Order: sequence, then structure tokens, then C-alpha cells
Amino acid sequence: MTEHTTKKTALVVSAHSADFVWRAGGAIALHSTLGYDVHVVCLSFGERGESAKLWRKGSSMTEEQVKASRREEAHAAADILGASIEFFDLGDYPLRADKQTLFRLADVYRRVQPHFVLTHSLQDPYNYDHPMATNLAQEARIIAQAEGYRPGEPIIGAPPVYCFEPHQPEQCNWKPDVLLDITDVWDKKYQAIQCMAGQEHLWEYYTRVAQQRGVQAKRNVGITSTRNIVFAEGYQSIFPRVTGDLA
Amino acid sequence: MTEHTTKKTALVVSAHSADFVWRAGGAIALHSTLGYDVHVVCLSFGERGESAKLWRKGSSMTEEQVKASRREEAHAAADILGASIEFFDLGDYPLRADKQTLFRLADVYRRVQPHFVLTHSLQDPYNYDHPMATNLAQEARIIAQAEGYRPGEPIIGAPPVYCFEPHQPEQCNWKPDVLLDITDVWDKKYQAIQCMAGQEHLWEYYTRVAQQRGVQAKRNVGITSTRNIVFAEGYQSIFPRVTGDLA
Amino acid sequence: MTEHTTKKTALVVSAHSADFVWRAGGAIALHSTLGYDVHVVCLSFGERGESAKLWRKGSSMTEEQVKASRREEAHAAADILGASIEFFDLGDYPLRADKQTLFRLADVYRRVQPHFVLTHSLQDPYNYDHPMATNLAQEARIIAQAEGYRPGEPIIGAPPVYCFEPHQPEQCNWKPDVLLDITDVWDKKYQAIQCMAGQEHLWEYYTRVAQQRGVQAKRNVGITSTRNIVFAEGYQSIFPRVTGDLA
Amino acid sequence: MTEHTTKKTALVVSAHSADFVWRAGGAIALHSTLGYDVHVVCLSFGERGESAKLWRKGSSMTEEQVKASRREEAHAAADILGASIEFFDLGDYPLRADKQTLFRLADVYRRVQPHFVLTHSLQDPYNYDHPMATNLAQEARIIAQAEGYRPGEPIIGAPPVYCFEPHQPEQCNWKPDVLLDITDVWDKKYQAIQCMAGQEHLWEYYTRVAQQRGVQAKRNVGITSTRNIVFAEGYQSIFPRVTGDLA
Amino acid sequence: MTEHTTKKTALVVSAHSADFVWRAGGAIALHSTLGYDVHVVCLSFGERGESAKLWRKGSSMTEEQVKASRREEAHAAADILGASIEFFDLGDYPLRADKQTLFRLADVYRRVQPHFVLTHSLQDPYNYDHPMATNLAQEARIIAQAEGYRPGEPIIGAPPVYCFEPHQPEQCNWKPDVLLDITDVWDKKYQAIQCMAGQEHLWEYYTRVAQQRGVQAKRNVGITSTRNIVFAEGYQSIFPRVTGDLA
Amino acid sequence: MTEHTTKKTALVVSAHSADFVWRAGGAIALHSTLGYDVHVVCLSFGERGESAKLWRKGSSMTEEQVKASRREEAHAAADILGASIEFFDLGDYPLRADKQTLFRLADVYRRVQPHFVLTHSLQDPYNYDHPMATNLAQEARIIAQAEGYRPGEPIIGAPPVYCFEPHQPEQCNWKPDVLLDITDVWDKKYQAIQCMAGQEHLWEYYTRVAQQRGVQAKRNVGITSTRNIVFAEGYQSIFPRVTGDLA
Repeated sequence: MTEHTTKKTALVVSAHSADFVWRAGGAIALHSTLGYDVHVVCLSFGERGESAKLWRKGSSMTEEQVKASRREEAHAAADILGASIEFFDLGDYPLRADKQTLFRLADVYRRVQPHFVLTHSLQDPYNYDHPMATNLAQEARIIAQAEGYRPGEPIIGAPPVYCFEPHQPEQCNWKPDVLLDITDVWDKKYQAIQCMAGQEHLWEYYTRVAQQRGVQAKRNVGITSTRNIVFAEGYQSIFPRVTGDLA
Repeated sequence: MTEHTTKKTALVVSAHSADFVWRAGGAIALHSTLGYDVHVVCLSFGERGESAKLWRKGSSMTEEQVKASRREEAHAAADILGASIEFFDLGDYPLRADKQTLFRLADVYRRVQPHFVLTHSLQDPYNYDHPMATNLAQEARIIAQAEGYRPGEPIIGAPPVYCFEPHQPEQCNWKPDVLLDITDVWDKKYQAIQCMAGQEHLWEYYTRVAQQRGVQAKRNVGITSTRNIVFAEGYQSIFPRVTGDLA
Repeated sequence: MTEHTTKKTALVVSAHSADFVWRAGGAIALHSTLGYDVHVVCLSFGERGESAKLWRKGSSMTEEQVKASRREEAHAAADILGASIEFFDLGDYPLRADKQTLFRLADVYRRVQPHFVLTHSLQDPYNYDHPMATNLAQEARIIAQAEGYRPGEPIIGAPPVYCFEPHQPEQCNWKPDVLLDITDVWDKKYQAIQCMAGQEHLWEYYTRVAQQRGVQAKRNVGITSTRNIVFAEGYQSIFPRVTGDLA
Repeated sequence: MTEHTTKKTALVVSAHSADFVWRAGGAIALHSTLGYDVHVVCLSFGERGESAKLWRKGSSMTEEQVKASRREEAHAAADILGASIEFFDLGDYPLRADKQTLFRLADVYRRVQPHFVLTHSLQDPYNYDHPMATNLAQEARIIAQAEGYRPGEPIIGAPPVYCFEPHQPEQCNWKPDVLLDITDVWDKKYQAIQCMAGQEHLWEYYTRVAQQRGVQAKRNVGITSTRNIVFAEGYQSIFPRVTGDLA
Repeated sequence: MTEHTTKKTALVVSAHSADFVWRAGGAIALHSTLGYDVHVVCLSFGERGESAKLWRKGSSMTEEQVKASRREEAHAAADILGASIEFFDLGDYPLRADKQTLFRLADVYRRVQPHFVLTHSLQDPYNYDHPMATNLAQEARIIAQAEGYRPGEPIIGAPPVYCFEPHQPEQCNWKPDVLLDITDVWDKKYQAIQCMAGQEHLWEYYTRVAQQRGVQAKRNVGITSTRNIVFAEGYQSIFPRVTGDLA
Repeated sequence: MTEHTTKKTALVVSAHSADFVWRAGGAIALHSTLGYDVHVVCLSFGERGESAKLWRKGSSMTEEQVKASRREEAHAAADILGASIEFFDLGDYPLRADKQTLFRLADVYRRVQPHFVLTHSLQDPYNYDHPMATNLAQEARIIAQAEGYRPGEPIIGAPPVYCFEPHQPEQCNWKPDVLLDITDVWDKKYQAIQCMAGQEHLWEYYTRVAQQRGVQAKRNVGITSTRNIVFAEGYQSIFPRVTGDLA
């Protein structure tokens, strides 16, 4: 309890085991550096939909092998970023969640008591697992807020939820209202990205994403900033921000 | 110059002479308390469209009298809120701005070097002067950023622009993404509101607006907050926020 | 004054001299039948943009001849529909309105004291004159509501504004929330349509529009209706409807 | 059958047992006064998500006790408003509906033959049960319209569906296009609100909502109105309104 | 394999057994004429929701009889249009799909290897089965693209998906970005439409739809066109078009 | 006349003298290669708003010098891309256009008879000159279509209008529905980019934009494509595409 009020925490809900790296690796590394306990929940390993390179290794490859390999990569990446990680192993393509899964994630919320939440975009016509994850993360958060769910347990507050950048942002109607400066932790993010041996074609793509958001962040900075931003991540908030000043 | 880097400032662009009070009085009082120099530009006195009570005083009432009365009220309110104020006297219903007005406002931006800007919503089917003011505020900001406008003068950075709450928010497609806690300065805001003798029917309306936003702010607060929010103001950002953390 | 409270009135603001026929002819004829005084303001004759057939008659054709011909057609149509009509002759392609035009239209509002207003859609990428007319109609309405505009004159209330159907509704982001049954007055509308000798290619197009909206109206009718709707017109409201019951 | 054509009816689909009071209590009381049979379906008691005060009474509190208490409150409120009420007891947080529930609600539609329907908003990021209820209400209405569902039974027409106001309207992208004057029945609504002993913190919140909508209703009233509106409820229509006049 | 690269194919996913005729009959006939193998999947027969006329034939009518009749009509229409057809028989009002159905449709994608896909709109407040079909078609397409689904089988590319026109386009927020000239195959489409004996009231409605889209297509044609378009179908793309020129 | 039907042409309307290079350089070079006459209209030189580097060269710099330098760069770039170019010299920050300018651009449309048009996005909160240019390009196109504008002159058809990519696409609500493969002409585009000596900081930014759109184009390609896309440009269409097939 005391811990909850003193220790800062964050929760990341990732549909597949690599999403948290491409899309939120900078935020994770940065807040880890700032003293947060960041916890990642991977709902699936992305074994079907995002492991093409592994499957192409030969017809003897099995789903268990693919999952094991993806788990290993994700663990390595989380270590580099400074986050703890757990796997729900729900399967992907399609990702589906029943009530028990919803409660399982609500229980993670209760345990972690996150100060903020990172998850996918609200829409993605290229990937139905992503909004499925977002909705699961949102509904679990609501359940964890309810006094009547496991009465007596400490409920959670109303942590802000940030949607991270999808692969083709405009097609997902995703519009960033937050640009997070990740320049100081870029090395860590890129190191974590390199753990994703099976998706090497995305390494440079997401490097350029970070550079473009970096340039945009510089364009949106007010007068007092002395930041030299080179890399950034974009996020879209779901809820209004409550604040004591507008600067 | 030194001053610019040490002194925090804000600019409020108000279509009519009372708008800044109803819509941003809390933000002005709060930042004034926080040490900001807040400067208000009233584009018109609202002499035609928002002075019904004065006009009803009798057929001998003249536009000059109405304007004088509105100026006085606005000055009194600005004093209470702790802001400086100037009047462009462009006329209202309709409000129109030519290039010279645009440059005049750009020059205010250059002089004030605001850390943030408050102005109207992007749409308002009930009041065409309001989005006109927003567009003027936006375009003047862009001109003040340009090296080629009055070359040699110090340009401005990219101060965030916040749209304040219109009278009928949903009809204006206005959606707040910031809820500013103004509980500590509510007394000042309500005192300033009372300067608007000609629009007494709005006093309680805007008190209730502040209470509703206050309740909503409490609903959106994360775990660590110990704030007891009673009154709030809602704002909609035009540009993404650049930040170094997500808490 | 007494008249205002006893006589029902409506105002139609039409960018070009035929728009009110295609788009609102049913509403005009219907309300005329219901005892309304319906007044049409044609901002232009559509002499440049919507008189192709006249121009093709030969190189001796002049703008004055085209305008005279269009005026005649519009007058004939208004007579059939039972409306009075006036022409602002502002020119088309492009339609432009200065402050004096705005006040001129505001004065029409004051004179007519309309119970509702019909005008164009808010957007139209095929025809910039149309949203220009909508904005003029909206801003003039706001000015006519202001006590400080020609103080002492009776102001107007808050008549609902309905946007009539543009030529390609989806491309204009126009979405009808009202379907008006015009079955009883269809004959009059079609007779008025036939006055538009220069745009014969549109007669059947707008007949089919009325039939399609008629079918849709039948689909959206509640249980008690005994109406046999065949022809309808669609409208999009700008303002919320104030009502004493939801049936 | 004769009854169906002579007796006016309405159906309210409420996710939790108090929603119909806060959000539609005025409409219910008003139409009850106008002679409608208004029937309320509460999909759940809100036992988990909206009964915090009850749960805080002590660790001996059980879900059955909470539900019983909520049922009693809801019954009392319905009595005051003049509506009949039934409870589906589907559970909340999360609310889920299978095919049998869908048919059960379709059967209610068939039995009630509503002239209009009231339910939740289409979106609500704070409460996933609400749009779930809206979708259930919508799909059940569609099934009840189908000749092939329980062939031989009388189908329903196309009653308008109105979405009532969510707690944070802008965040739900809810935009009212109807403002219902509930001034004459406000006393009943407030009396019904007071039945909700467990949510006393919301009494004044929803009083202010009614006052704000009342002020807005007055702003949107046309010229002929002699109504003195003080309290109102906002609604968003899903379907276009079919009408015989535009006044 | 060779076949895949030489033979052009298309896939149509239709919620009920007549949808593909009204909404995409022209595209099917046209591409059939152009040498495509067009395959139609009917998810249900529309036995409950879209067979009113059959049900009205008498109380002895059974669901099996209705389905048989609808199957026959759909087969006849497909024959005329030149398409192959299969029926998933999932039931309608409501249409529901589990994981096995999803895989079944993914397998159709793998088998057909479509060059483009036609299905319903993304929204439809009048018909929940339609967006259900769209989502099923979309998610099955994504699964068929995944290397890890039935590893070793040839995956599909990224065929464009076009949403066909719903009954009330604006209410479904459907906006066509493609207008397909079907003038040359209109006779076939109208012949296929006439197979739908149970929905004769829609024959003329959809004839007029084709005529209206035809007129609109002519309005949107560039300079070089010598097409004389009379009938057209509108489509809304979900994905961006990849092209080598902009003409 | 004969020429019009045989020679393919395109028109690019650029707010400032470098916009056509960053945003449409690939399309210009590609269509020039395909045999199109591509004509660029630069509405201003961007002398105030987009020439920071030149202004920083010293206080002796004059607007005329800046304009001359920008004109030279733009000419060089157009030469490389294979386009003709003209300058309206309307001034920037703010860009304003009166009726005469509108007619001047309409006359260019009449002269060029473009098969397609490229211009800016519909919105841009960072740059008001950009949507101003879009609206000018749109309205001039409409006027050039009107028989009554300079009667007797050949009018234009309905060339598609494509909005090119703004600097911060999501903030401008710009969503590409066309991805143009510019891989074969990338060298020319990059060579043209390098003419923009004053904006060297943007060279790599727009290289990365082209790479990202290239990756996205590959993701959206159907089955038959053998294209190896590396660089692409995104465009948003304003009007629906009229076509004879969907492949």
C-alpha cells in the first residue's frame, strides 16, 4: 500500500510479443530510467501473424518452436528496456479474449496499480488483433476500477491510456497528441529492436519513424525548451489530461 | 531577451470583451498566481452581439456608450484576474480582420513571446466571430514564427494553443483533452465574472460549467493525485504536446 | 407584430436561381399549402455556372440575356410553389458577399421573421458558391438576432436551419436527419422543375432523388403512421430541435 | 391489436439499474404524463460497477444484497416516473449478451410495440457496458422488425431511437440533436433521482446537467415559442426523423 | 500456382443471399466479362430478415422452404452474372461467426487468391448483419495473409477491399471513392435482379441507384473520356490504392 | 484542340516555391517521363515563411533578393523534374487571393487542360497558406468548368484533384488513398530536392517520407504485382475515381 503511493508504475498491453518494442520501446526505457516499474503483458506471441521468417525456415517448424523463439526475443528486449514481462499466450490471428482473460488482465491492473497505460490504436484495418487488445486493455481497466469487482481489494485510479503508433498511422485514423522525447534512450530502444531477429525488415522502418517524430517534436516545442530532440514516439490519449498548469 | 527566457508569459485572444472571463478566467488567474504575465487581446467589445442588456436601457444608448461600458467591465475583470489587457476595437457581428490586423496581432505575439495561447473553438454555428478569432490567432502565430516577417526581430517558438469552451460545446464539435484544476482561484474567477453586469444571466451558467468540469476532472485523475478538485476549465489542444514523461 | 405571432413564415436562401426548386421545392410548396408565407432569396442567377444550355445558343448571347432568362424561370417556379422571391444579383462563379450584403440579408431576416430557414449544405467540393451561401445565411441569421444591430428593431428568435440536399450528397458529407414527406405536393414541385428549361437533364435526376428519399422515409416511419409516402426531401439540421415530446 | 394502434408506448433500455433515472427520467415522466405506457428494461443492476457506496458498507456485503438494494431503488424510481420496469439481471462489468438475451429483448419489443426507444450512447470510453446496451437495443429492434423471426407474430415498425446523455458527453462523441423540455416534470425526476441513495454524489451533478440543457434549449427555440424552459434533457437520434412539416 | 498468376479472380462476401445482386451485380458481371473468375460467398440466405414476401405466403411456410427458395434465386442470379457461388448457411438476424467460420472463409481466400474483394459497408444502423459480414471478410483476409496460418500453404497478397453501397448510404457513413461504369452489363444486372422474386419492391429502387451513380460518374470524368456512362455502382475503398500513374 | 486530346497534361498548384518539390516531385518526374506536359504554378516564393536560412545571411538581405534566389532554385528543380513553371508572386505569410487571381488561375486551367491536378491538403494548422492554395486551386477549377466564364472558350472536364502530403500528415487530418510508386524517378526527385539549398534540413526528412510510403505501398499491393517499390508518394483524392475495372 505504502509502496503504491511511493513507487511509480506503468503497464503496457501488447497484442503480439514484439509490438511493445517497435511502438513503445522508447517510453518503456525512458520511464524505467526515471524510476518506474514498467510491466509488459504480451497477449500472444504473434506466432502466426508476425513470425513469417521463422515459418520460412522449413516445414519442420512447429508452433511451439515459434512461440519459444518469440518468447525469448521478447524477454531479451524487455530486459534491455528495463521492464518485467508476462505472456498470456492467447493465440493470434485471431486474438480472442473471454471473460476469464478480462478478469486476468483486470487483476494485473490491480496488482500493478499503473500510473499510465500504453496499448494499441483504436482502429487498424490491417490487423484486427490490435484494436482487440486495445479494447481488452480498456475494459479491464474499467473493471479494475469497480468496487464491486473482488470487493475489498484496492481498486485502481484513472490512469491515462496512451495508444501507440500503428504501422500505417493515417489508415488507422490514429492522430498523435503527445510526442515523447526518447533521444536519451534511443540506444536502448534500438538495441531492443535488434532482438527481433525475425523481423529485421522493420528495424530501419521504425528507426525512421522515430526520426520523423523527432523532427515533428522539435517543430511543436514552445519557447523555453532547450531540448535537442532527435528521436521521439507519438501517442494518442484516450482521456483528457488533468493538470495544474498549461505550460 | 534575458527577460524572455526568465519570465513566463501567456496570450489570450478573445473575440468579445467578456469571452476571456467566462471561458478562461480560471486559467488566467491561476497562471498569474504562478508568476506568468498573462496578456489579453480583446478583438471587439461585443458591443452589438453581447450587450443586449445595455441596449435595452433605452433608445438613447449609443454604440460608443456600450463600448465604453464594456471596456470598463473588461478592465475590471482583467485586474481581478491579474492580466494586462488591450482592445483592438474591430467591431463585432460581424468581426472582420484585414492584413493589417493580422500583422498587429503578430506583433503582439512577438512582443509577448507567449509560452501558451488561449483562444476560441475551431467551430461555432451560434457565433461566427468566435472561429474568426481562432483563425486570426492561429495565422498571426504562424506569421510571428516566420524569419521573413520583420526580419531581424526575434521570432516566437511554437507555443501550444488551447481552445476554450464554447457555450454549447457539442454543437461546436469541441472536445476537451485538458481539464485544468482552477479550484484555488475560483473565487477570483467568480469575482471577475461578476464584473459582467450586462450578462448576469450567464453567471450561474458558467459556475455550473466549472462545477461539471470539476467533477469530470476528478473522474480522470490518476492514482497519485491528492488534489481535491471542485472547479475546472476544459481546453482542446490544437497541437501535440511535446513531453519528457507520460505521467 | 401581431402579424408575427399569427402568420407563419419561412426563408429560403438559394445560391443560384434554380437551387431552391431542385432542392427545396417540395418543402416550399408544402408549407405554402400549410399557410406559411415562404420567401426565397436568390443570391445570384447562376448565370455563369448553371446556364450552359443558354450559353450554347450562340455567341451573341450576353450575360444580361442569360440573367433575364434565369430570372423569368425562377419567378415562374416560385409562383407555382406559392413563394415570394427576390434576387440579390451578386454574381456567381464565384459568389462573393461583402458586409453590406450580409446586412442586406440580415434585414430580410428581420423583415420575414422566419419560423425556419432552408439553405445549402455546409460543404460542397463541386460548387464553392453553395457553402458560401450557407455561411452567409448563417451569419446573417446571427446578426439579425443581435440587439445591437439596428438597435430598437425587433430581433429574430432562433429559427431552425435546414441544409438541403446537394447534388452528390456523400461527397459533401451531407447526412439527412429529416425526411420530409412531399407526396401531396409533388405535382407542384415537378411543375416548377419544368420551368427550368435550361437544365432539362436534371428533371429526371431530381425526380429520382425524390423517389429514393420517399422509399427511405417509409423505412424510417414509426408504428402509428398511415402515411403512404412516395416522394420526400432530405434535410440536415444545423441546430438541435427543441421539443415537448419524442414521438 | 386495437390496443397497439390506440395506446402510445415507449421502451427504455438501461445498462444498469440507475441509468434510466439520471439520463431519461424526464422523458419517462413526461411521456407517462402524456399518456404513454413507458417500459424500462434494466439489463443489469450495476451491482459491481455502480454500487460503490453499498460495497463500502462492510465486508459482509454480498452481491445478492447489493442487487436487491439496487432493484428496490430502481422500482421506487420507476414508480415515481410512472413506468413499468423489468430486470434482465445479466451482470455488469462486464455486461455480456448472448443470442438468447437478444431474442428476449426482441420479444419485449414485439410485446411493447414502442413508438420510440431510449438507450445509451454509441460510444463511451469510461463504460463499456453502455455501448454494449446500445448495440443490444439496436440489434433486438432489427430482429423484432423481421417477418422471419417468430413468423406470424406482429412485427414492429421503425420506432426512432434516441441516445441519452452519457456522463462525459464530449468524450463519448455524443452530440444532442434533440433538447426535450422537462420543466413540468422536473420535480418527479428529482424525486426519482433521490431514490438512488447509493449515488448521492450524482444528484447535484445531474441537476446541473438538466439546468445547462435547459439554458441551451432556450437558446435554440424559434420565434413562436412561449415556453419557459428551465430543465431539459438532450438526446441524439440514430435515424432520420420522418415528418410532414419543418416548424 | 501458374494459374494464380495467369487467371484473374475476385471474391464477393455477401451477408444475405441477395446482397451481391443489388449491390455488386454490375461489378460481378463486368469482371466476369473481362475474364475474371468471380466467386460469391453468401454467409446466410437472409431467411429471416429479407424474405418477408415468402413468409407472408402462409403459416405453413418453414425456414427450410424459405432457404431453399432463396438459394435457388441466388444461384440463378449468379449464373446470369457469370459467378460461382457457395453458401455458408450461418443464419441471419442475427448473423454470427465463430473461429471455425473465420478459418473457413480464410480458406476460401487461400483457394480463390482474389485480385480484389467486395463486401458490405463498415457501418449500417439498419442492418447489423452487414458490418458483421464486413468484419468477417476483413479478418479472414488478414488470416489468409499470415504465414503461420496453415504453414506451407500459399498465402494471399493484399487485395483491395471495396465496400458496396448500403440501402441508405449517408446513414451508414458510406462515401464512395470509386464509381464503376456498369453501362455495358446493366442488362445482365437487371436480369439478375429480377431473379429476386421475393423483393420486387427493390427492383426499381436499385435501378434508380444505378442511374444516379451513372449521372454522378459522368460528372467526375476527366477530359479524355469518351465513355457514355448511364449506369454505375459506387464503392468505398478500405485501403490505399497502389499505382504507377495518376491519370 | 487536337492537341488537347492527344497530349496528356497535369497541373500542380504550389503555395510556396519549394512545396512542389518535396511533396510532388516524384509524381512530376514520373509523369514527365510518361510523356505528360506537367505545369507548375507557384503562388508565392515562400519568401517570408520558408526562407529562414537566406534571411539569416545578414541584415542587408532584402525581400527581392530572397525571392530571386527562391525563383532560381525552383526553376532549377522544375528543369530537373521535366516541368514548366510560372510564378504568381502573391506574397506569403499570409497568402491571399482576390478575384483577379482566381480568374488568372482559371485561365491557366483552360490553357493547360489538365488530366489531373496536384495541390495541398485541405487542412494544415501549421501553415495557413497551404489550405488557401488548395481552395484557390479548387475554386479556379470549378470556374474553368463553367460555360458562362469567358463564353466560347473551351471549358475543362473534371480532372481528379490529389492533395499531396503535408509536413505533419495526421495533424492535418490528411489520409492517403493513393500510393504512387516513384522508385524509378527517385534519383531525379532527390536531385531536385538538392536545389533547395535554403532548406537542407528537410532533405533527409523527405527522403525518409518517401521510404516510409514505399514500405507502405509494398504492404498494400495485390497479388499480381511484380513491382519492387522502394520510394513512394502518398496522395489524398478529393473526388471519386471513375473507372472501368477494380483491379
